[in-house]
Amino acid sequence: MVQLKGFAKLTNVDEAFSTFLSKFKLKRLGTVEVPLKMALERVTAENVVADYDLPPFDRSAVDGYAVRAQDTFEASQSSLKTLQLVQKRRIGKNETVRIWTGNMLPKGADAVIMLEYTKLLQGEIEVWTPITTGENVSKKGEDVEKGEVAIEAGTRLKPQHIGLLAALGVTKPKVVKKPKVAVLSTGNELVEVGHKPKLNQMVDVNRLILSSMCLEIGAEPLDLGIAQDSINEIDAKIRIGVERADAIITTGGTSVGCADLVPEAVNQIGTPGVVVHGIAMRPGMPTALAVLAEKPIFVLSGNPVAAMIGFEVFARPILHKLLGVRNDLRPSVRAKLTRRVPSALGRQVFLRVCVFEREGELLAEPVRIKGSGVLTTMTEANGYVIIPKEREGIDENETVQVYLFDKLRREECV
Amino acid sequence: MVQLKGFAKLTNVDEAFSTFLSKFKLKRLGTVEVPLKMALERVTAENVVADYDLPPFDRSAVDGYAVRAQDTFEASQSSLKTLQLVQKRRIGKNETVRIWTGNMLPKGADAVIMLEYTKLLQGEIEVWTPITTGENVSKKGEDVEKGEVAIEAGTRLKPQHIGLLAALGVTKPKVVKKPKVAVLSTGNELVEVGHKPKLNQMVDVNRLILSSMCLEIGAEPLDLGIAQDSINEIDAKIRIGVERADAIITTGGTSVGCADLVPEAVNQIGTPGVVVHGIAMRPGMPTALAVLAEKPIFVLSGNPVAAMIGFEVFARPILHKLLGVRNDLRPSVRAKLTRRVPSALGRQVFLRVCVFEREGELLAEPVRIKGSGVLTTMTEANGYVIIPKEREGIDENETVQVYLFDKLRREECV
Repeated sequence: MVQLKGFAKLTNVDEAFSTFLSKFKLKRLGTVEVPLKMALERVTAENVVADYDLPPFDRSAVDGYAVRAQDTFEASQSSLKTLQLVQKRRIGKNETVRIWTGNMLPKGADAVIMLEYTKLLQGEIEVWTPITTGENVSKKGEDVEKGEVAIEAGTRLKPQHIGLLAALGVTKPKVVKKPKVAVLSTGNELVEVGHKPKLNQMVDVNRLILSSMCLEIGAEPLDLGIAQDSINEIDAKIRIGVERADAIITTGGTSVGCADLVPEAVNQIGTPGVVVHGIAMRPGMPTALAVLAEKPIFVLSGNPVAAMIGFEVFARPILHKLLGVRNDLRPSVRAKLTRRVPSALGRQVFLRVCVFEREGELLAEPVRIKGSGVLTTMTEANGYVIIPKEREGIDENETVQVYLFDKLRREECV
Repeated sequence: MVQLKGFAKLTNVDEAFSTFLSKFKLKRLGTVEVPLKMALERVTAENVVADYDLPPFDRSAVDGYAVRAQDTFEASQSSLKTLQLVQKRRIGKNETVRIWTGNMLPKGADAVIMLEYTKLLQGEIEVWTPITTGENVSKKGEDVEKGEVAIEAGTRLKPQHIGLLAALGVTKPKVVKKPKVAVLSTGNELVEVGHKPKLNQMVDVNRLILSSMCLEIGAEPLDLGIAQDSINEIDAKIRIGVERADAIITTGGTSVGCADLVPEAVNQIGTPGVVVHGIAMRPGMPTALAVLAEKPIFVLSGNPVAAMIGFEVFARPILHKLLGVRNDLRPSVRAKLTRRVPSALGRQVFLRVCVFEREGELLAEPVRIKGSGVLTTMTEANGYVIIPKEREGIDENETVQVYLFDKLRREECV
C-alpha cells in the first residue's frame, strides 16, 4: 500500500503532468532576432526557407580542370588523353578550362578533374584517369534547393546549423525569446551562498542549482532571493515572479508540516492556484504544480536532489515547450544494472546511476543510496533510470534505459 | 592501393595525432577564479577539498520529532507509544524534541520521526510506527567528509557541482582559463558572412562554424578574418594568432593545388612548422598539423564538413587538454546501420548518420552521400561512425558505435 505521508492522495507522475497542462494555455514565447555569433544553442522560431539554391550554380569542389566527363572515358595509364586548355565560357569536345574550388562550371562541362591527376603541357593537359559525370562537382541546389525548408522551427542551433544559415544569407535568424524563470527559495534556516551558516542554518544551494539548470537549457533565471517562512513574504515574492517572469520555481516549504506555506501563498494569490500537490514519485513526493495568470509554478521540495528531479520531470519539459523545442530528448543509453535495487511500489522512482563501459559493455552502477539531500549522489551519477511505480525493484544485470545528465565515464564508477 | 592524390604519403589518423603531440609540450592553461553564477560548464583547475564535514553535524532531513529509535521499536497501530515532548539539548529515554528540516539533532537522539506519523497531545506525542536508527537523519559528513576530494580537477561543472561547491563554501572556484583560439579563413573566393557573393565567390561559413565549435567546448574564438591567397597575408595573420592565442585554426588553402599556401606560410614563420600534411581520412584528407612557438596549429580543409571533422578529430581533443578536461567523451550509442555503406580502404572514414529509435531499437541511417562541402549532411545527421581504414564498408544491420553531436531523433530519419 502506498504510504500517504500526510497527503490525502498522491498523484501519478503522468497524471500530474497532464492535469497541470490542462489548467493553462502553454504558448511558445515570442521571437527575437540575434546575430549568428550569438545564436549558438538558441532555438529557431520559424522554418528557415532557402531564398536561393545552395550552391547557386554547378560549382567545382576542387582545384583542377573542368571537362566533359565523356572525353576522359578512354584515358588510362597506358593511353593518355590530351585535352586542349581554353579560356571560354563554354567548352566543346576535348576542351578543358582551368577551375578553382568554388568556381562556376563553364557551360558544356559536367565534371572536374583534380589538378593532381593531370599534367600541364604547352596549352594542353594530359589525363590518365577516366572520371565519371558529376565528379568533383557540387550541383546547383545539391545542398539546399530554393524554397526548401533548410532548418525547421524548433531546432536548437548547433555549429552546423549556424554555418548553413550563413550560407543561406540569414545573418540574424529569428529565435525564440529566452524564458524568464523566477527562482525563489523559502525557509527560515537558509542563508545566502557565501555566508557561513550558524548552527541550525543551511546554505541555500537550491536557488543556485535551479538557476543553473535554467541556464543549461537556455532560460534566463530571475533571482527572487530567499523568503522567510511567512505567507505574506512568500506571497509578495511570488507576485513579483508572476508579474515579471514566464514561469516560477520555488523550493522549500512544500512538506505537510507547519512550514507548508508556498501552496497556501499561491492559493491566496489567485486561481486556479495549486492544481496538484503530492506526487507518487521518489524523490520529490511533496512537489506541487500550480498556475497563476496562465503561468506555470513549480513548487519543488527543499531537498536539493528532490528539487533537481522535480525540475527535470516537470519544469524542463514545460520550459522546452515555452522555447518551442521540437526535440528535447536527453541523450540516453541502455546499460546493465550492476546490482539489484529495491524500489517503492506505487512510486515512480528516479534512480541515480553512474554509467561506464567495461569490456565493450555499458554498465550502470546505482549510486549508493542516501537521503535526497545528498548532493554527491548527483555529482557521482551521470544519469538516472526511471523505475515504474508497478515495479518493486530492478534485478542485477537487468538492462535499463539511462537518461544522461553528464558524460559517460572513462573509468569504472566505484 | 591508397590513392595518394598529390601527397607523397598519407599518415594514419592515430599516427598523425601522436606525431603531432610529440612535437610540443601541451600544457594545461592557467587558472582563474569565477563566481559560481558564471561557473556553469567551466572546468575545475584543481581538486576541491572539503574544508568541513557536509553536513557539519547530524541534522534532520524532515520536519518532525527527534527520538531515540529504540523507544519506537514496540510502537504499532494497535499499541501506540507515547513520548514526552521536552526542550533540551540532550534527550533521554522516551523523550523527544520538536525538530525542523536542517536542524541539528539533540544529543541522545539518533532518528527523526516525521510529523505525519505522530499525533501531538498535551506535552506528549503519540507514535504508531517503529523507525530505524538513523532514519530521516543526514549524518555528519554523509555527503562529504572534511578533507575529502568533493570534486576532482578537470571536472566540467554542472548544476549539481555548483550546488556542491556552494554547500562547501566555495563561492569562487578555481577554473581553467578559456583557451583562446585564433580562427583564420583563406581564399580569394571568400566573402564575409552577410555579403552577397558574386559569381565565383562564396560566403565564408567555415570561420563561423569553427568559432561556434570553439564556443561549444568553452574556448574563446579570436577572429583573424579572411586572408587572400597570398603567402605574405597568411603569414602576417598566423603570426598574430601565434602571438595572441593558445591555438590557431586555419581553413582553406591546404590542397596540393596552386593555392596550397597555408603550410608554406607556416613553414616560413618558424620551426617545427608543419609536422603532418595529408592524412588517411575522409573527409579531411588535406588536413595539416603544425606547431609554432609551442602552439598547435590546425590547418583544416576549406570544405566545411571536412573542416568540422578535422576539428572534431584533432582540435577538440587538444583544446580539451588545454582545458584540462578529465573526460572528453562524446555521448555515444550503439545502433544498427540501416543499409550497407561502402568505404575507402586505407582511409579512416567518418560516416555521418542519423540515429533514431524504432520499436525500442536504435537505428543509424547513413546520411545520403554528397560532397564534403554539403552542410546539410551535417544538419541532417546527429552523429558519426568511424569506419576503420582496414574495412571496405559496413554491412546492413551491422551494429556500430555512433558518436553523437546532436540529439537523438524522436521521429525516423528520412
